[in-house]
Amino acid sequence: MDIADLSARITGGDRRALARAITLIESTRADQRGQAAALMEALKSAGREAIRIGLSGTPGVGKSTFIENFGLMLTGQGLRVAVLAVDPSSARSGGSILGDKTRMERLSRDARAFIRPSPSQTHLGGVARRTREAVALCEAAGFDVVLIETVGVGQSETVVAEMSDLFVLLLAPAGGDELQGVKRGIMEMADLILVNKADGDLKPAATRTCSDYAGALRLLRRRPQDPEGFPKAMTVSALHDDGLVRAWAEMTALVAWRREQGHFAARRAEQARYWFAEEVRHGLLARLDTPAARALMQDHAARVAAGDVTPAVAAAEVLARIGE
Amino acid sequence: MDIADLSARITGGDRRALARAITLIESTRADQRGQAAALMEALKSAGREAIRIGLSGTPGVGKSTFIENFGLMLTGQGLRVAVLAVDPSSARSGGSILGDKTRMERLSRDARAFIRPSPSQTHLGGVARRTREAVALCEAAGFDVVLIETVGVGQSETVVAEMSDLFVLLLAPAGGDELQGVKRGIMEMADLILVNKADGDLKPAATRTCSDYAGALRLLRRRPQDPEGFPKAMTVSALHDDGLVRAWAEMTALVAWRREQGHFAARRAEQARYWFAEEVRHGLLARLDTPAARALMQDHAARVAAGDVTPAVAAAEVLARIGE
Repeated sequence: MDIADLSARITGGDRRALARAITLIESTRADQRGQAAALMEALKSAGREAIRIGLSGTPGVGKSTFIENFGLMLTGQGLRVAVLAVDPSSARSGGSILGDKTRMERLSRDARAFIRPSPSQTHLGGVARRTREAVALCEAAGFDVVLIETVGVGQSETVVAEMSDLFVLLLAPAGGDELQGVKRGIMEMADLILVNKADGDLKPAATRTCSDYAGALRLLRRRPQDPEGFPKAMTVSALHDDGLVRAWAEMTALVAWRREQGHFAARRAEQARYWFAEEVRHGLLARLDTPAARALMQDHAARVAAGDVTPAVAAAEVLARIGE
Repeated sequence: MDIADLSARITGGDRRALARAITLIESTRADQRGQAAALMEALKSAGREAIRIGLSGTPGVGKSTFIENFGLMLTGQGLRVAVLAVDPSSARSGGSILGDKTRMERLSRDARAFIRPSPSQTHLGGVARRTREAVALCEAAGFDVVLIETVGVGQSETVVAEMSDLFVLLLAPAGGDELQGVKRGIMEMADLILVNKADGDLKPAATRTCSDYAGALRLLRRRPQDPEGFPKAMTVSALHDDGLVRAWAEMTALVAWRREQGHFAARRAEQARYWFAEEVRHGLLARLDTPAARALMQDHAARVAAGDVTPAVAAAEVLARIGE
């Protein structure tokens, strides 16, 4: 594969080249990992910067409708939008929350939009590392906004936040005591909480839920990267295209403030450090993932299980042979 | 340090030698790590087998009172009891849930009992690896029962279960809807649920809570290592010494059945494999924990943060220099 050519096509806006590049970075083959690293290195000087938006919401909050109509609103303004996903379930089952593009039929046919399903990998860490690189590819390809979607179950929000400039939590209207359903850690990551389905019968419940969350947000300690009034909670109706323009205005205002104050660049630098350390840790542990190392591990594990040697001594023997 | 001598003293029942040995295995100094490994290797053929009981309970359930009176009941039967702890908070603060022996004053003065606080380490993984070795030391020293205490907050139960023959969950009586407070994952690890404080005013609530949990346990899938009727929920009053003999009878019955069916040995073998793999993973990542590696990481992290190099390429450079 000609990396210089692929790189030029991506920065030239060739969507098929972008799709091929993402397939390349998702590969676990050693030779392709090397090509992928070279491609990322070649593209890092493209000098383009999208707004990276992390978006979390549990099934049923209307996430697909939100992404479709929010995305169409953005492309309607002439912006180019990429949608990626970090799907913790694909790490187990090989399935994907974004495998089915019919979920966002109109957006997927939009020339200014690019939708990519979550990669299938066996570990959330693997999914996340590849998605982070896909975000950088979309950015080099000139997309103005990259939406990184995930579902609200545990670890995946944390890794999405580590690759986003701002983090949006999408919620559904709820009964009075359902506020507890959102983990404190997730609340603390959110820059913007959008209570969806603020339409028809659910509108009063949405308004109430929104004010509950606004109250809860006020109780959290103000972070240095938050301007006055943030993090913020507001209602939207993705289905009726209501509030989406205002939500986008809040996002751009937040990003503009963070850029001005230096928080935007500082956070990206911190994230780069984080992913670097992750890559190193992963690379070290990957030394166990060769046929020779697996055989060595198996042999020693059997001796440990039989009580012939202690775990620590067996581990020292293995480590001495995995290079030092 | 004369490892053969230390080993002989431990198997001879010398408590000061045991305490010194635990201090040795808790050391992070490289030379002492080697001695600790040699000691564990020397003791592995002592051929003694305690019943290792993992015990979890959040603050306020009466865990200290339970351990004190349960321990005294066992020593009263002529059994020797060791109490160790895996304290996730000590991993952060350096504090310890068992630092204060006055918590179990009578038991700590009992000649048949040995109480050891949780080691102070910066990672839960480090605390857990050392506690697992301390369990093996207590076993080699001839203790009949090793209690491994932890608090009910997240990861620490999992690591305690990985070093126990059976896992006991201690709970307090609660209102009707507090059953949700126990995470499903913890419920699924429990072999025995003890609802404490079944005395005085709280007795009706304890009975109701116990029957709620008994119902919840029946909904869980039967595991191969469970005889008929297990996992089981029962009430106790640690304060009034009520139900402790019966709880111990349930534990010994469970262990006897598992021994007979081969589950006991199979689980220990599986746990040895687990800790072996943990030691290997830890040893690999420890290669980042030398002055030279830290300097290398810092230097590359700075270049990554400045955008001079991608995380993946910087990681590859570091990995090439950390030996392969």
